[in-house]
Amino acid sequence: MEKIKLGHGAGGDLMKNLVEEIVSSIDLKKTEKGFGLDRLEDAGIVDLGDKKIALTTDSYTVDPLFFPGGDIGTLAVCGTVNDLAVMGAEPLALTLAYIIEEGFPLNDLKRVTDSVNHSSKAVGVPIITGDSKVIEHGKMDKLIVNTAGIGIVKQLVTNHGANPGDKILVSGSVGDHGLALLAKRFDFDTDMASDCAPIWEIVKRALEIGGISAMKDPTRGGLANCLNELAEKSSRAFFVKEKQVPLKEKARSIGEILGIDPLQTASEGRVVMCVKPERADDILETLKKFDEDASVIGHVEKEPKGKVILETVVGGRRFLEPAIGELYPRIC
Amino acid sequence: MEKIKLGHGAGGDLMKNLVEEIVSSIDLKKTEKGFGLDRLEDAGIVDLGDKKIALTTDSYTVDPLFFPGGDIGTLAVCGTVNDLAVMGAEPLALTLAYIIEEGFPLNDLKRVTDSVNHSSKAVGVPIITGDSKVIEHGKMDKLIVNTAGIGIVKQLVTNHGANPGDKILVSGSVGDHGLALLAKRFDFDTDMASDCAPIWEIVKRALEIGGISAMKDPTRGGLANCLNELAEKSSRAFFVKEKQVPLKEKARSIGEILGIDPLQTASEGRVVMCVKPERADDILETLKKFDEDASVIGHVEKEPKGKVILETVVGGRRFLEPAIGELYPRIC
Repeated sequence: MEKIKLGHGAGGDLMKNLVEEIVSSIDLKKTEKGFGLDRLEDAGIVDLGDKKIALTTDSYTVDPLFFPGGDIGTLAVCGTVNDLAVMGAEPLALTLAYIIEEGFPLNDLKRVTDSVNHSSKAVGVPIITGDSKVIEHGKMDKLIVNTAGIGIVKQLVTNHGANPGDKILVSGSVGDHGLALLAKRFDFDTDMASDCAPIWEIVKRALEIGGISAMKDPTRGGLANCLNELAEKSSRAFFVKEKQVPLKEKARSIGEILGIDPLQTASEGRVVMCVKPERADDILETLKKFDEDASVIGHVEKEPKGKVILETVVGGRRFLEPAIGELYPRIC
Repeated sequence: MEKIKLGHGAGGDLMKNLVEEIVSSIDLKKTEKGFGLDRLEDAGIVDLGDKKIALTTDSYTVDPLFFPGGDIGTLAVCGTVNDLAVMGAEPLALTLAYIIEEGFPLNDLKRVTDSVNHSSKAVGVPIITGDSKVIEHGKMDKLIVNTAGIGIVKQLVTNHGANPGDKILVSGSVGDHGLALLAKRFDFDTDMASDCAPIWEIVKRALEIGGISAMKDPTRGGLANCLNELAEKSSRAFFVKEKQVPLKEKARSIGEILGIDPLQTASEGRVVMCVKPERADDILETLKKFDEDASVIGHVEKEPKGKVILETVVGGRRFLEPAIGELYPRIC
């Protein structure tokens, strides 16, 4: 009998198969005029006629729960806010659900809630409803947080809209979140911190400039997964120059020591945008006001459809593949 | 150092304290014109001007995962649909998040997804977005499901609105869900089945008649918790006649054998309504079309505020108290 593997949750090909299997058995995947699981975007869209509402959810599990740059509470709020943001939706309200292992220290729960509160205030999005469950000791690992969120669509952007000629931009260095967690777990002497942060403010400014044809945040599976999803869903080819991809020197070192590719490692406060060429300079300028590491990393072409081609630092070319299953110690 | 206890998740007083503690540290609890954690209703409300959107979430953990009358998938869809329904909101769209233990049989996951699909179609509410996480074997118990949902408010009903003179109605027998699960777990020879079902259709019909001043579904902590919450939030006294409370004979037997009070045991397909006396007959008639066990179980008075007074079968009177912490083997 087939069983669920860890890799089914890691953001790679195995997970894609599992998600497709689950989704295929759901008959009602969308509202009459919106879209939903039929499209597998970062959020579903409900069309209310005069307004479009985005709805999204994520469960968060992270080891360690507290890490340089944030904790599971920061992650849960930012993750859901960011899934709304990449659809072009202004976050309106969040839910917060705690699943807690019996014996979990109350003070740690308070610390997590303080972080939830801090991030909620940073974005100005309220937590309007919630839930808590307590699971018997030994049948749960510490704390899982689920958040869901709704947003008002300001300008609908999807994973599907990249066009030939578009420039590909990233709003800051990649892999910081995943590598900071691994460094902390392996007790490295480094000041590497997670990039975990809400991206709505950045996205809002970029939307005001216009010309964004597709957008996604490089979380599970990192930049590699993000670009592959955008390329595949848009049926376009993504050409990326490795030397243009912003990467912190310390992130590179940690990756090298652990044998982990930072391009396949999660960021939690970055956004990848495909932008009409005539708007790329303006948007880059805006992104740089938030983070000077923001960069144009490549461009979109017609062929080969659904592929990401990486021009490596030494000048070679290879397909940048998405992660397959479990590549390294789980961090999210 | 204080630690989380199992009772913190059981729906009783301990849980109330935990929720209050979490909620007190959140600064943004509601949108400008709606309400949210400041009111602790079954859903938060976002006011979009011409429309009100209800947003709610719940995580589901149940042992056994499959039980007579449904499974964790049925429960997750019905629970969230029902939390919207008791606010007077028509369910619009749901999220679905699976947290799966490594090694969980893929076929069981498919079975759960089939139930999700079945309940989603029964209500006509689509699953428009989702998430899945896989947790290392031994660090999770099988499967947790989280759902969130949004609904359009047709006629806002809250936990706070009960008025003196209101009749108290319940839409069917109480405690069936919890007692069916316990019977299954202890391997009783009984055909006791969970009442797990969506209540939106029933609520919709009752809303059309009008006169509902407060409404809630008697889930965690059963009828006792439900009535106490309504009484407390409405600052009214609830007088209930035990002999009017619909209770299946087999539920009574299972409760007696296990020493469990069915009034403190969860239903998952029932609704408790406080109704203006002049509409009570019409609404009861409508409820009876769905379930002939529907009954007027009592009425609302001014004093003693926040209390539920039970007139027992033998004619005595006692306060019907909410559950305190963990009263019996966990079922949800």
